Amino acid sequence: VSRNRNPKATFFPVALLLSTILLPTTPRAGETGDIAQRYHEEAARLIGEAIVSNDAYESLEYLCDVIGHRLSGSPGLEQAVDWTADLMRRKGFSNVHEEEVMVPVWIRGEESARLTAPVERELNILGLGMSVGTPPGGIDAEVVVVESFDELDSLGAAGVRGKIVLYNQEYRGYGGTAAYRMDGPSRAAKYGAVAVLVRSVGPVSLNTPHTGTLIYDEEQPRIPAAAVTIEAATMMGRLARRGETMRAHLEMGARQLDDAPSANVIGEIPGSERPEEIVLLGGHLDSWDVGQGAQDDGVGCIIALEAAALIRRLDLAPRRTIRVVLFANEENGTRGGKAYHERHADELPRHVAAIESDLGNGAARGFRLDLRGREGEDEEELEELRDETLAAMRSIGELLELIGASGMRTGWSGVNISSIVADGVTGLGLDHDPEGYFDVHHSEADTFDKIDRGQLAKNVAAMAVMAYVLADMPGRLVQNRVAP
Amino acid sequence: VSRNRNPKATFFPVALLLSTILLPTTPRAGETGDIAQRYHEEAARLIGEAIVSNDAYESLEYLCDVIGHRLSGSPGLEQAVDWTADLMRRKGFSNVHEEEVMVPVWIRGEESARLTAPVERELNILGLGMSVGTPPGGIDAEVVVVESFDELDSLGAAGVRGKIVLYNQEYRGYGGTAAYRMDGPSRAAKYGAVAVLVRSVGPVSLNTPHTGTLIYDEEQPRIPAAAVTIEAATMMGRLARRGETMRAHLEMGARQLDDAPSANVIGEIPGSERPEEIVLLGGHLDSWDVGQGAQDDGVGCIIALEAAALIRRLDLAPRRTIRVVLFANEENGTRGGKAYHERHADELPRHVAAIESDLGNGAARGFRLDLRGREGEDEEELEELRDETLAAMRSIGELLELIGASGMRTGWSGVNISSIVADGVTGLGLDHDPEGYFDVHHSEADTFDKIDRGQLAKNVAAMAVMAYVLADMPGRLVQNRVAP
Repeated sequence: VSRNRNPKATFFPVALLLSTILLPTTPRAGETGDIAQRYHEEAARLIGEAIVSNDAYESLEYLCDVIGHRLSGSPGLEQAVDWTADLMRRKGFSNVHEEEVMVPVWIRGEESARLTAPVERELNILGLGMSVGTPPGGIDAEVVVVESFDELDSLGAAGVRGKIVLYNQEYRGYGGTAAYRMDGPSRAAKYGAVAVLVRSVGPVSLNTPHTGTLIYDEEQPRIPAAAVTIEAATMMGRLARRGETMRAHLEMGARQLDDAPSANVIGEIPGSERPEEIVLLGGHLDSWDVGQGAQDDGVGCIIALEAAALIRRLDLAPRRTIRVVLFANEENGTRGGKAYHERHADELPRHVAAIESDLGNGAARGFRLDLRGREGEDEEELEELRDETLAAMRSIGELLELIGASGMRTGWSGVNISSIVADGVTGLGLDHDPEGYFDVHHSEADTFDKIDRGQLAKNVAAMAVMAYVLADMPGRLVQNRVAP
Repeated sequence: VSRNRNPKATFFPVALLLSTILLPTTPRAGETGDIAQRYHEEAARLIGEAIVSNDAYESLEYLCDVIGHRLSGSPGLEQAVDWTADLMRRKGFSNVHEEEVMVPVWIRGEESARLTAPVERELNILGLGMSVGTPPGGIDAEVVVVESFDELDSLGAAGVRGKIVLYNQEYRGYGGTAAYRMDGPSRAAKYGAVAVLVRSVGPVSLNTPHTGTLIYDEEQPRIPAAAVTIEAATMMGRLARRGETMRAHLEMGARQLDDAPSANVIGEIPGSERPEEIVLLGGHLDSWDVGQGAQDDGVGCIIALEAAALIRRLDLAPRRTIRVVLFANEENGTRGGKAYHERHADELPRHVAAIESDLGNGAARGFRLDLRGREGEDEEELEELRDETLAAMRSIGELLELIGASGMRTGWSGVNISSIVADGVTGLGLDHDPEGYFDVHHSEADTFDKIDRGQLAKNVAAMAVMAYVLADMPGRLVQNRVAP
C-alpha cells in the first residue's frame, strides 16, 4: 500500500537547483549522442520547470476533489470534459474541442450482500461493471468456492447449478488474475450458476473491494456478479475447507440505460514547421464510480495535458503538432479510443507517435515501445525496426537518466491508443513502476492522497521531454507504417 | 499493510528439522548461562512442538471465522467466553472457570455521514466507541478542519461553536495520535462544537475507518463522534485550504444500555511444587464490533492459551502454577483487568509474573519488563532491580535467540494487567514488532487472513518458554514487591 502522504511532506525545496544537475553535461559522441546534445537545453528547461511548477498537482487535485469520480454517462465525466477543455484553453492550447462519443450508461444502483450460513456476516461488495442486477428481493443460494477455472470445470453443472460461485483465486499479477473478474461470470453461468462473487483483484486489502468490468459471453445467460474483499473471499474459502455449507444473499440494483453522448477532449500545441504531423499524448478521463479515479486515470490525463502545457509555456514551438487527447470510456467499452480511430483514420499516416499514460503515478522508468506486426509483415524485419526504434528512444532517454526514466523496452502501450497502434501508428506507453497501483485500482481508495507530488513532476517531465523531442527532431522516430 | 497471505504459502515444511538447530548448543558459563543450560532441553521441546503444531492457528481460525468479532455485551463475546473455557478443558487445563465481570454495553446502531457542500460525497465512517448518537434525523452543520489541538484552541468558541470539528491530524505513531480520538470530542465540545469527526488513527488506508474508544470529559457536553478515513480527512483538509466552506450531515444511532454480565475466562496448569505461586499469561477476549478482532486481541488470547497448552501437552509440570486469563472488556472500560485485580487481591503477593500479549501477531522480538515504582520507593534502587531482572530475562532469552525473541527491555506490559502491575506484580509484555498492526487495528481489516502462521508459532514458542522457565526456575524472577 502506498503511504498516505501529507502533501507538505513531498514538497521539493531543492527543485531549483536540480534542473542544473539532472542532465549529463558531456553529450556522447555519435548519432545517439546527437539527440541528447541537440536537446540538452530544452530538456533541462522542461525538467526544471516541471519540478518547480505545482501546476500538475493542482490540476489533479481539482479533478479529484472537486469533480471526483467520472463513470461514463455520469455528470462527473461531463463536468470533467468541460473543465479539461477549459483548462486547455486557459493554458494556451489551440484547436481545443470536444469530439462526441456515444458511451454506455451503466448504473450501479443499491447493492448489498450477506453471508447467511453457517454464520451471519455482512459482505462488503462492489458489483462488477456492466453486470446485470438481481431480481427484486435478491438471490438466496448456496455458495460454492473454487480457486481456479479448472476447479470450476471439474465441478461442472452438477456442482454449480443453482448456486453462487465464489472465485477465491490467488493474486498472480493483474493480467493473469483479472480473467476471473472478466470471464468468470459467464463461465459459471455456463454450468447453471445463478450469480458470481469474485475475490477482488489486487495484492493487498484493508477490507477493500475492487470493481472493474466483466465481459459477458453472448452464448450464456447474464448473471449478476460482484467483487468481494480478499478478507471475505479467504474467509469463505476457509469455511468451505472446514466442510461448512454456506449460503448467501445478494442484492444488486445494477442496470444498463441507453447510450449517452460524451466526448473525447482534444487540444493542440501546433507544429511550427510540419503542423500536419502529430505526436499524440493521452490518457482516459473516465473512471469507475468509486474513489476519485486519481491514478486510474486522472493522473494520466494530467500528465499528458500538463506536459504539453509545459512545452507551450516555455514557448518551445516544436516542428510538429503535439495533440493531447483525453479519451472517454476506457473502463467499460473503450468507445473513446475507437471513436478517435474512426474519426481520424485519414490522419493516421501523419501520426508520428502516440503516447499513453494509464498505469498510475508510480515513477516512470522510461517508455514501452508498441510496434505491432500487421498482416503479411515480416516478423524479422519488424524486430529489426523495433531494435532501431528502441535505440533512438534510448538516445532520448539519456536526457531522462537522472530522473530515472531512461529505460526503453518493448511492450503494451495502452488501451486507448491500441486501436490506432493496431493500424500501424507507433505506440509508446509511459512505463510507470506499478508498485502500489493495484492496491487501489478500481476501488474507493484510488484517491488524491496517494499521489506523490515529486513523482508526478518527474512523470510530467519524462512525458514532456519525450513528446517534445519526437515532435521536433528532424526525422520521424519510425517511418510511416500506416497503410494508406 | 501486511500482505494478505495464502495460508498455504506460510506452511513450514522444514519445521521438524528446526527444533534441533534453533538453540545454542554450547551453554555459556556463569549464572546467566546456567538458566539457558538448565532449560535447554525443555525449550527445545517447546519450540519444536510450537513450530510443528497447527493448534494455535486452528484455534484462532475458529475464534475469528466462526465466532467473529466480540464487543463487550455482544453475543459474540459470550460465545467466545464459553468456547475458550471449553477449549481449555479439552486441552487438559485445571480449574477452568469463568469469573463474572459486569461490562458496558455500547451499541453502534445505524450510522452514516455525507459531505453536503461544496461537493456531495458519502463518507465511510465508524462511530467512536462509547459515543452518544445524534438526535433523530442527524446533525447538519458546517465543518471546520483543524490539524492539532493548538489549532482548535486558537480558533476557540468563535470558530467552532455550532460546527462539526474535523481533526485532520497527521499520524505520528499510535500513542501520540490516539489522543485526538480519545480526548478530541470533549475538547471540541468545550468550544461549543456539535459533533466531531476524527481522521482514523493509522499509518495507511485503503478507505479504511478505524474505531476505538473516546473518553468523555464529565465537565463537557457529550457530543457524537466518528472516525473518517484518511482519504476523506485529507480531502476535507484540502478543500478547506482551497477556502471552501464545507457542510456535512452526520447520523449515528449509537447508544449505551445497562451494564451486562460477561466474564474473565481462567484456566491453569497447576504447579507441581509451589502451586500457590502463579505465572499469569493473558490477552483480552473482547474486540471492537468490526472485523474479527484477529490481531486485537484474538491472537494474544490464543498465544497465552496455546503456550500453556503446549506445556501441558509435553507434561513439563513446572514447579509453579501457570494461569491463563482471557480478560473481558479491554476496549471500552478495562473492566476485566480491574475485576481480576479486585477478586485476586489476596493472591497478588504470590504472582511471580504476569505476561500480556496485546500488540498483534508481529514477530516477538522479546519481552518488555514493566516494574513500576510505588509511592515512597527509591527510584535508584528500582532502577537497579530492573537491571538485575533484565539480566535474568536475558539469560532466558538466550534460549529464544534463534527465533528472534531474545531482546529484553523495559517498557509497558499491557492494559489488562496494568492494574495488578501498579500494585507491584512484575509485568512482562510480549514485545511484538508493531509493523502492520496499526494498519488494521480497530478496523474491518483486522481479520484472520493477515495472521502469519510461522510468526504465530514462534510467538507461542516465545511465550511458552518464558512462562515455563519463570514458573519452574528455583528462584523467583523478582522477589515479592506487592505490599501485604
